[in-house]
Amino acid sequence: MISKKRGQKLYLKAKKIIPGGNMFLSKRPEMHLPDNWPSYFSKAKGCNVWDLDNIKYTDASIMGIGTNTLGYGHKEIDDFVIKKIKLGNLSTLNCPEEVALAEKLIEINPWADMVRFARSGGEANAIAIRIARAASGKDNVAICGYHGWHDWYLSVNHNIAGDDLTSHLLPGLKPLGVPKNLKDTVFPFSYNDFNELENLVKNKNIGIIKMEVERNFKPKDDFLKKVRNLATKNNIVLIFDECTSGFRETFGGIFKKYNVEPDMAMFGKTLGNGFAITAVVGRKNIMEAAQNTFISSTFWSERSGPSAALKTLEIMEREKSWQTITKLGNKMREGWKRIAKNQNVEIELFGIPALSSFMFTHNDKLKYKTFLTQEFLKNGFLASTNFYPSTAHSEKIIDEYLYIFEKTLFTISKSIKNNIPIDSILDGPVVHGGFKRLN
Amino acid sequence: MISKKRGQKLYLKAKKIIPGGNMFLSKRPEMHLPDNWPSYFSKAKGCNVWDLDNIKYTDASIMGIGTNTLGYGHKEIDDFVIKKIKLGNLSTLNCPEEVALAEKLIEINPWADMVRFARSGGEANAIAIRIARAASGKDNVAICGYHGWHDWYLSVNHNIAGDDLTSHLLPGLKPLGVPKNLKDTVFPFSYNDFNELENLVKNKNIGIIKMEVERNFKPKDDFLKKVRNLATKNNIVLIFDECTSGFRETFGGIFKKYNVEPDMAMFGKTLGNGFAITAVVGRKNIMEAAQNTFISSTFWSERSGPSAALKTLEIMEREKSWQTITKLGNKMREGWKRIAKNQNVEIELFGIPALSSFMFTHNDKLKYKTFLTQEFLKNGFLASTNFYPSTAHSEKIIDEYLYIFEKTLFTISKSIKNNIPIDSILDGPVVHGGFKRLN
Repeated sequence: MISKKRGQKLYLKAKKIIPGGNMFLSKRPEMHLPDNWPSYFSKAKGCNVWDLDNIKYTDASIMGIGTNTLGYGHKEIDDFVIKKIKLGNLSTLNCPEEVALAEKLIEINPWADMVRFARSGGEANAIAIRIARAASGKDNVAICGYHGWHDWYLSVNHNIAGDDLTSHLLPGLKPLGVPKNLKDTVFPFSYNDFNELENLVKNKNIGIIKMEVERNFKPKDDFLKKVRNLATKNNIVLIFDECTSGFRETFGGIFKKYNVEPDMAMFGKTLGNGFAITAVVGRKNIMEAAQNTFISSTFWSERSGPSAALKTLEIMEREKSWQTITKLGNKMREGWKRIAKNQNVEIELFGIPALSSFMFTHNDKLKYKTFLTQEFLKNGFLASTNFYPSTAHSEKIIDEYLYIFEKTLFTISKSIKNNIPIDSILDGPVVHGGFKRLN
Repeated sequence: MISKKRGQKLYLKAKKIIPGGNMFLSKRPEMHLPDNWPSYFSKAKGCNVWDLDNIKYTDASIMGIGTNTLGYGHKEIDDFVIKKIKLGNLSTLNCPEEVALAEKLIEINPWADMVRFARSGGEANAIAIRIARAASGKDNVAICGYHGWHDWYLSVNHNIAGDDLTSHLLPGLKPLGVPKNLKDTVFPFSYNDFNELENLVKNKNIGIIKMEVERNFKPKDDFLKKVRNLATKNNIVLIFDECTSGFRETFGGIFKKYNVEPDMAMFGKTLGNGFAITAVVGRKNIMEAAQNTFISSTFWSERSGPSAALKTLEIMEREKSWQTITKLGNKMREGWKRIAKNQNVEIELFGIPALSSFMFTHNDKLKYKTFLTQEFLKNGFLASTNFYPSTAHSEKIIDEYLYIFEKTLFTISKSIKNNIPIDSILDGPVVHGGFKRLN
């Protein structure tokens, strides 16, 4: 079933004319199944994706890398967006949908008063940092987690420690092209390490704390409340980056679960269910600082983005989608754990249920991951060691997935037990473990 | 005809929940007609815009601030985008349209080999700077013109000179929230001042020159060729920012007119005819440096943007739209000049024909501009001192516009001649001349 399909042929061409091959590292075929990943889609609907050869797959992997919690091509959302496009996507005047969306986001975030929009998560993060720096009057930021590709964030890797972002999703990254004089303005701290953060605040004139609320681990020892108190006491702007976590455990930020409120928060990914829209929400005294600087872009004023978000929020609220995807994620996690235990293959689980991941702990983990993806693909699944459920998934799909998972783990288990390398049954190169230069 | 319409009511609400009122400074109602600008659109088609009260206007102003050179809601483009949205706007796989668009842009720019896409002009500019810095190994940039809202660019205003961006479209801007240690990395030079640029290159370890090719003035004394030679001789990456000027005088960059080729160029604005898509094109030896850094974003991989651009390019090439809009722009300029001369009102013209602007030279210029916009609005025109033509405009529309222009200039002429302030016949406050904090 796997051969040099149209998608791989197109990708070979793409690598010659697009540096890095595509626009988004996580969609790089080498991050999934080098030489054999379908790479491009012709159609996507529900939890199905069709490649350029019109082969249909069930997407039990990362659903647009976390964008489509309501499934692909959601008819109600698409119809609403299409209606707006037919009325005109852009003009010299502003689109009223941006005001309606701002109102809705303030309703969802009653601690917040004002909103700005952008079209990518990196932009939303950069806008938030600009506003927070303008409001606090300080340049220095303490960060935890992944916050995009912009200079302010990658500059961490110019600090003396060198490879500081390794534990924040970007192992091995060289900050080439990021101005070197940004060194020592942004300082990382580890999740749940309150002492580390406290020391930064004491010694580094921190004006802003920006963090992901929960990614791989749960907060311990009232970590989030301590951070909130520290920020308040020191007049620090506390920013929660919910671009990834938002609308997956609550109707809004995951911070709602922990009874802690930030001064600003960003939402992205899920907000438009596959249409480009991101938001920065915040308290008035901070957000008004946006008026003392310059944050403006032509395409932030187009209509399809806020329209998609308005309809997506309506449907998420109506269907309580975060409950459905959490339930599906939990079912998958239980399956992974049960089967791995039965097959005597060690795995570690990560993430919240709606962003579930696991890792083989064996030295050959990337080979096993490659084999798993390969076998799933042969069985009509885009799948690997992640599962980002959508409301278009079902328990039945998870059962089908787990059946293939079990068969594949059986082979992996034999390989481990008998100390036979799995290489001979890999149809192509081993999957990349992170950022890597392509040839 | 002018009263507190729905648009102004919504804008009053917007200012309370969106700092600065909207997403794009040039669409701020105060930049057009404070208190009376329609502010929001319900529908846009061809060169017509309908406000929230369903009042129809002819847009003889800035057409989405330069985005829609083929007119609003172009059926062929919209149908193509809608077809793609119905097939799914985003998935775990990449969209093949991005490869097709990259190929097309290389065909249009035979000096270039590789392409990256983003969704806003500011992003395209920041991507180009990141890649160029990574390629050159130097952080310092010489700039001329407007290049967006990002830190790298606004940092100019931290230099000792203070308000360096005044002559580059951002008068009076404070760089609040931009890290102060970015000071002295970016240095502005004046258009056509080759000596100034040469001195920067001699004294400031410049690795990159980024400039608009032509905005308000034509190049003099082989300025562009001298810049190209200077860059080549000193191993400097030369970047032409064509986000604003592209596809208005040629099928591609305006630099084609001057037989000068850059090492990188950005396109935006016109590229998707009102859909969000921007591009960075460049030579392989430079673009490949993108692989040594991290430039990646979820929504850069959605499908509607490159789809819109593919269809827009097809239509622009077929219809030679740059010729049509240049012709219409020239007709408008001739009308402006003729009538201003007849009415004894001094004006100065700026810009290329397809981005035509004029300025009253009188001290009360902003009051006259306000009056002009007010009178146009009463006569069913969104219009002022700019005209960014589209292929949806016609000579007849320009004639209608010029008839109102003449009547209004007659009143202004009387005001000047008899030294009677025009204030008493203004229905609202005077238009803003630039960036200004809102209350």
